[in-house]
Amino acid sequence: MVTRAPEPREDTVIARQDLRRVACIGGGVIGGGWVARFLLAGIDVAVHDPHPDAERIVREVLANGQRAYARLTQAPLPAPGTLTFHATIEAAIAGADWIQESVPERLDLKRGVLAAIDAACPAHALIGSSTSGLLPSDLQAGLTRPGRFFVAHPYNPVYLLPLVEIVPGSLTDPQTVADAVALLAPTGMKGVPIAKEIDAFVGDRLLEALWREALWLIQDDICDVETLDDVIRYSFGLRWAQMGLFQTYRIAGGEAGMRHFLGQFGPALKWPWTKLTDVVDLDEALVEKIAAQSDAQNEGLSLRRLEEIRDENLVGILQALKGADEGRGWGAGKLLAAFEGDLWRKAQAASPDEDDPVPARLSARVEPSWVDYNGHMTEHRYLQVFGDTTDVLLRRIGVDAAYVEAGASYYTVETHLRHLGEARLGEDLACRTQILSFDDKRLHLFHVLTRAGIDEPIATAEQMLLHVDRASGRAAAAPEAVLSRLAGLVERQPSTTMPEGAGRAVSPAKRQSDHSPVHEQVSDRRH
Amino acid sequence: MVTRAPEPREDTVIARQDLRRVACIGGGVIGGGWVARFLLAGIDVAVHDPHPDAERIVREVLANGQRAYARLTQAPLPAPGTLTFHATIEAAIAGADWIQESVPERLDLKRGVLAAIDAACPAHALIGSSTSGLLPSDLQAGLTRPGRFFVAHPYNPVYLLPLVEIVPGSLTDPQTVADAVALLAPTGMKGVPIAKEIDAFVGDRLLEALWREALWLIQDDICDVETLDDVIRYSFGLRWAQMGLFQTYRIAGGEAGMRHFLGQFGPALKWPWTKLTDVVDLDEALVEKIAAQSDAQNEGLSLRRLEEIRDENLVGILQALKGADEGRGWGAGKLLAAFEGDLWRKAQAASPDEDDPVPARLSARVEPSWVDYNGHMTEHRYLQVFGDTTDVLLRRIGVDAAYVEAGASYYTVETHLRHLGEARLGEDLACRTQILSFDDKRLHLFHVLTRAGIDEPIATAEQMLLHVDRASGRAAAAPEAVLSRLAGLVERQPSTTMPEGAGRAVSPAKRQSDHSPVHEQVSDRRH
Repeated sequence: MVTRAPEPREDTVIARQDLRRVACIGGGVIGGGWVARFLLAGIDVAVHDPHPDAERIVREVLANGQRAYARLTQAPLPAPGTLTFHATIEAAIAGADWIQESVPERLDLKRGVLAAIDAACPAHALIGSSTSGLLPSDLQAGLTRPGRFFVAHPYNPVYLLPLVEIVPGSLTDPQTVADAVALLAPTGMKGVPIAKEIDAFVGDRLLEALWREALWLIQDDICDVETLDDVIRYSFGLRWAQMGLFQTYRIAGGEAGMRHFLGQFGPALKWPWTKLTDVVDLDEALVEKIAAQSDAQNEGLSLRRLEEIRDENLVGILQALKGADEGRGWGAGKLLAAFEGDLWRKAQAASPDEDDPVPARLSARVEPSWVDYNGHMTEHRYLQVFGDTTDVLLRRIGVDAAYVEAGASYYTVETHLRHLGEARLGEDLACRTQILSFDDKRLHLFHVLTRAGIDEPIATAEQMLLHVDRASGRAAAAPEAVLSRLAGLVERQPSTTMPEGAGRAVSPAKRQSDHSPVHEQVSDRRH
Repeated sequence: MVTRAPEPREDTVIARQDLRRVACIGGGVIGGGWVARFLLAGIDVAVHDPHPDAERIVREVLANGQRAYARLTQAPLPAPGTLTFHATIEAAIAGADWIQESVPERLDLKRGVLAAIDAACPAHALIGSSTSGLLPSDLQAGLTRPGRFFVAHPYNPVYLLPLVEIVPGSLTDPQTVADAVALLAPTGMKGVPIAKEIDAFVGDRLLEALWREALWLIQDDICDVETLDDVIRYSFGLRWAQMGLFQTYRIAGGEAGMRHFLGQFGPALKWPWTKLTDVVDLDEALVEKIAAQSDAQNEGLSLRRLEEIRDENLVGILQALKGADEGRGWGAGKLLAAFEGDLWRKAQAASPDEDDPVPARLSARVEPSWVDYNGHMTEHRYLQVFGDTTDVLLRRIGVDAAYVEAGASYYTVETHLRHLGEARLGEDLACRTQILSFDDKRLHLFHVLTRAGIDEPIATAEQMLLHVDRASGRAAAAPEAVLSRLAGLVERQPSTTMPEGAGRAVSPAKRQSDHSPVHEQVSDRRH
């Protein structure tokens, strides 16, 4: 199939540093997943898919993605890109930096679509195919610019799973592979280049091997589909969410090491442990058997509910891995940390709030893990939101991670919380801060938490912070730069009256006829 | 191999409801993992392993398990069981309720060990084998009580991964399988019965199929081991930590359903997607290639560090899954929730603190996720500890989950926190509560947080709670039963003086020559 020599590097146009516009040719679950991933990273997406339900399906996947992202991160997500639908391939790809093809898995169909893309796309555009198994060399043969084409094979749900196998064909420019990896990074994805093209690449090879074995186990009634799923998710599935096959086995080998471990495996390869030499016939009877067992396994769980549960689980796992390795993050969680770091840096660089007269603001949504057995937000999560708002203020006056690294910080020494209402699951909250007073060491704040867009407070926090030299652990005067930024914020802040509820102490309960207040008892005994 | 008829059910002795003593024959990584799992569930474990390093290895695995459990749960873990090492099989198995064999994978060796166990074990004991592939019928042939024998195949690390494949041989009593599943549950494990015995059962069948394919991919230089691991852990590994193969594909099938999805897969089984018809030769060259790539992948990561990271990741994933499905938990997380529920129930049933004159106490350890960028415990975690201590008090006066379910609860309306010191990563903390006052609706508390065993407070919290009718959301008088329990606690509590720091309000910062305090400005503008 290889009919052209590789295009010389000097004729290609370097891809942009950041994607600004993407075209998705083909919607569906995978195409829609790409749409959600790009849009939520702030990139405009133009879609072409002649299927009558395409727009509905894409918007449903996008809604799933938006729900997941609301829980995924507290970092300031960019404004979503603009989503447009187009009647022709040509209209969709106009001005695109990256064109992602996700049409059904038929070589002739894909080649026709790619030819149409190739004929009309911008010269600098990268062209990725979502194929899960066709060879890139077969797909790129005949294109005018085969050097810009490659396989970009994602995993469902595309908006949460980071992996994209980047597989070059024989005519793909090596720079294209590097560009693709770099351009995907700001979307939170992990482009993994595959050295040699083979049918199904790496991921689907592995999946297919396990899938065939699974079909035999069901066919032969060794177990049903629920048992097989349980075997996976209570054991090696947990391992593989964070380390792969070889790293896991490296540990399993223990002190004897990887070579010794492999030595033990040699004989097992001769054992009759798999039905590798034969392939099951997925006939009507086996399809019916699996489908019926799957219905039983998922009784009462709609497709939509399963998607919600899956996404919530994936978000939780990604967040757990973000906190791993002493906060540095591990695997997909390290990627999430990098994604968030990028968002924070962009937010700080853009400084859209530089002119906001309110000293600090924070938006938050009440997550499922924030809700207690009473069905409302558990009390320490209120303080988390208040603390995060304090952090916004501190960053604004220059007390950021680098400042802390350099040896000083503000520590909270006292907090007074009042609960005036209840925040419930899924509600959007808004917190805003007033600076009550400050001096060279002290910073006295008052936060008000409300539902977004509603002025009535549901909680308040009054806080006293102390500027501390971290080495000695003692209070120390803040530098002039910090104090003058504080003074500037105070000068401009809109709230100029002492807020209701500031300066309060907790007052004791009243005496009750049949229960003497302890406060009184205490006094009695003390004297 | 099957030479005996199944033992009649009436001759067998019903297993205990709870395991009290387990014998582990064979240490090593798997045997040591079983030891840790049982000991940490409060079960005594007797070990026999003639290997000279056996005790050291078991204790190292146990140390890993203890570190992991310290982060895994806030529920009251039981006092660990007693660990003993024995020179003979007979000494180790005396009095055991469950005997777990984990010697090397050689049929003759295992049969010899099992014969010795069978000859001397208690009549009621269950006998499990950790074999990862030998047939239970082959192992049980010739035993006096084959009905009590089965395969109990766990996954490394055994103290964290819940799966145990329970595989009966032809002579295994069906009741034995049910007993094994029931007895493992209180240890947090998931016994999954496999319907028919085959070589390698279900999990290792699946692993072996994928492993063979992986070896080909490395052998043929399609990718290296790090790329292959990344392909797994950034994609389907994340999926399989929470849903298995079939449930994942059910979702992937989308609205078209499982039958349609399977219909699409049929043709793929004819594609040349795997090397199923051949098995790689794991010769010296391939072993060396994999080992060298693995060394490169793990540069700078010691075996011990890899174990720590793996365990921390698994703990985080288990905790994330515990919060899933609107707090009900999902998969391995649901199992963790059940395990914790069991611990709480046992702790409440035992009521060891019924005579404690201190109204409420809580112990907590500063977890990695509790530490902020300053290196000390982040502020909202203090309130979490105080809130959890309040919950201890509320349970003690009868305000537990059932009480809340019935329609009323105590809500916190005001909290005053003071930070007097710093809690750091890994430190053990102790919180204790004084009831300052109460009446029929209000409850006024004062918590003091210290390092465990050190009297100096590092933080205090003064809290006012209100007894609330949940339907109306309004304050309502607490029932007499609750008030009289409160009165009883007050009567006996040791602290009879108003604590230092109670009744405080946050006071404003002082005026500073070059920065006018806002407090003053505010007054100026207001008048």
